[in-house]
Amino acid sequence: MKVLVIGANGKIGRILSKKLSASEDYEPTAFIRNEEQRAYFDEIGVPAIVESLEQSEEVIGNVIKDFDAVVFTAGSGGKTGYDKTLEIDLDGAIKAVQAASKHQVKRFVMVSAAHADERSYWGQSSIKPYYIAKHYADKELSQSDLDYTILRPVRLTDEPDAGKVKMLNEPGQLEREIPRAAVAETILTILEDKATYGKIIEMSRGEDSIEEAVKKVCS
Amino acid sequence: MKVLVIGANGKIGRILSKKLSASEDYEPTAFIRNEEQRAYFDEIGVPAIVESLEQSEEVIGNVIKDFDAVVFTAGSGGKTGYDKTLEIDLDGAIKAVQAASKHQVKRFVMVSAAHADERSYWGQSSIKPYYIAKHYADKELSQSDLDYTILRPVRLTDEPDAGKVKMLNEPGQLEREIPRAAVAETILTILEDKATYGKIIEMSRGEDSIEEAVKKVCS
Repeated sequence: MKVLVIGANGKIGRILSKKLSASEDYEPTAFIRNEEQRAYFDEIGVPAIVESLEQSEEVIGNVIKDFDAVVFTAGSGGKTGYDKTLEIDLDGAIKAVQAASKHQVKRFVMVSAAHADERSYWGQSSIKPYYIAKHYADKELSQSDLDYTILRPVRLTDEPDAGKVKMLNEPGQLEREIPRAAVAETILTILEDKATYGKIIEMSRGEDSIEEAVKKVCS
Repeated sequence: MKVLVIGANGKIGRILSKKLSASEDYEPTAFIRNEEQRAYFDEIGVPAIVESLEQSEEVIGNVIKDFDAVVFTAGSGGKTGYDKTLEIDLDGAIKAVQAASKHQVKRFVMVSAAHADERSYWGQSSIKPYYIAKHYADKELSQSDLDYTILRPVRLTDEPDAGKVKMLNEPGQLEREIPRAAVAETILTILEDKATYGKIIEMSRGEDSIEEAVKKVCS
């Protein structure tokens, strides 16, 4: 399965690229923003395509069309302005969705954020604009004809091990954090699992293995 | 017809409130952001409600529910950050749409912007993030069950007279500018015109009267 990882140079993207590369089932390609980001992927033996999510849907489509699945884990991040939140997290994501749909690259995994559907929560948050962008990008994906799965982790940490997790089908009581490694591992677990198509999964640390947790929310 | 003008203190909103107030057919109410904005509306005899588009959909719904029509002409403007573009132009607009839909306030006129559906145009623009917000807000409205009309004027000017206009059903050759007075006058012309329901109208200065131009694009 040829998987395009959009936002591969992000922290989740790097872990995921490495895991996909180590698996016999997947041929990952990294979608990265500039040449300077290529070295890491050379090192782990993952081909990289340099392109920008600020390009047209056509340009993005020309990259996407050769793959079997897309994982979207790009984010403009906290260091850029909210103009980039609109351009990348909202419109960039939606261009990727539309391009995948146009080229019938049906499998699409979106890394979103816990609370992205809870407007009442956003007001308390210092990153309300980010939630707004994720909310509408997710909405577009969930209304598309793609075989999507939307993962919504809580606050991300850098622990090396995935550990145990908790998953919910809708907003509810979660732990406060989750390792990025757990999100990446979940993506590997669900990529070819049709039971996860059309599902939105809120996730945090917890007490289930990833396989068990996925089964609970996707059966 | 009781009309709620959201963004009434904007330049179009002020002109529109005055015009609606002068007409026997309408009872306008101004939706404004703070008490300091009330004086103008006291002066022209238009009641005002002070509320924020950053409030919840429920709060906005409690204002909207008493009206027969909503005109949305709010905009975060060029002086605030793009966080407000996300909070007002995108999510604020969509909350108003959702609240109107929930309370069956069916008539909804949105003041948008020419080129809001032309992604290829945005890249050349210094206000690309604004177009992104308008695009997705308009999309949400056009997918709602409301009797909407979306007006998409080109660059706005402050000439006192509406003058003649040009209207198109889709992006095309328009003049570069249009007076805000023409946009306000168009809203008055179309508010009760069922032929304009479900229509998106791109508009600039031109050679038709507003009535003629509306007839051309809504017949």
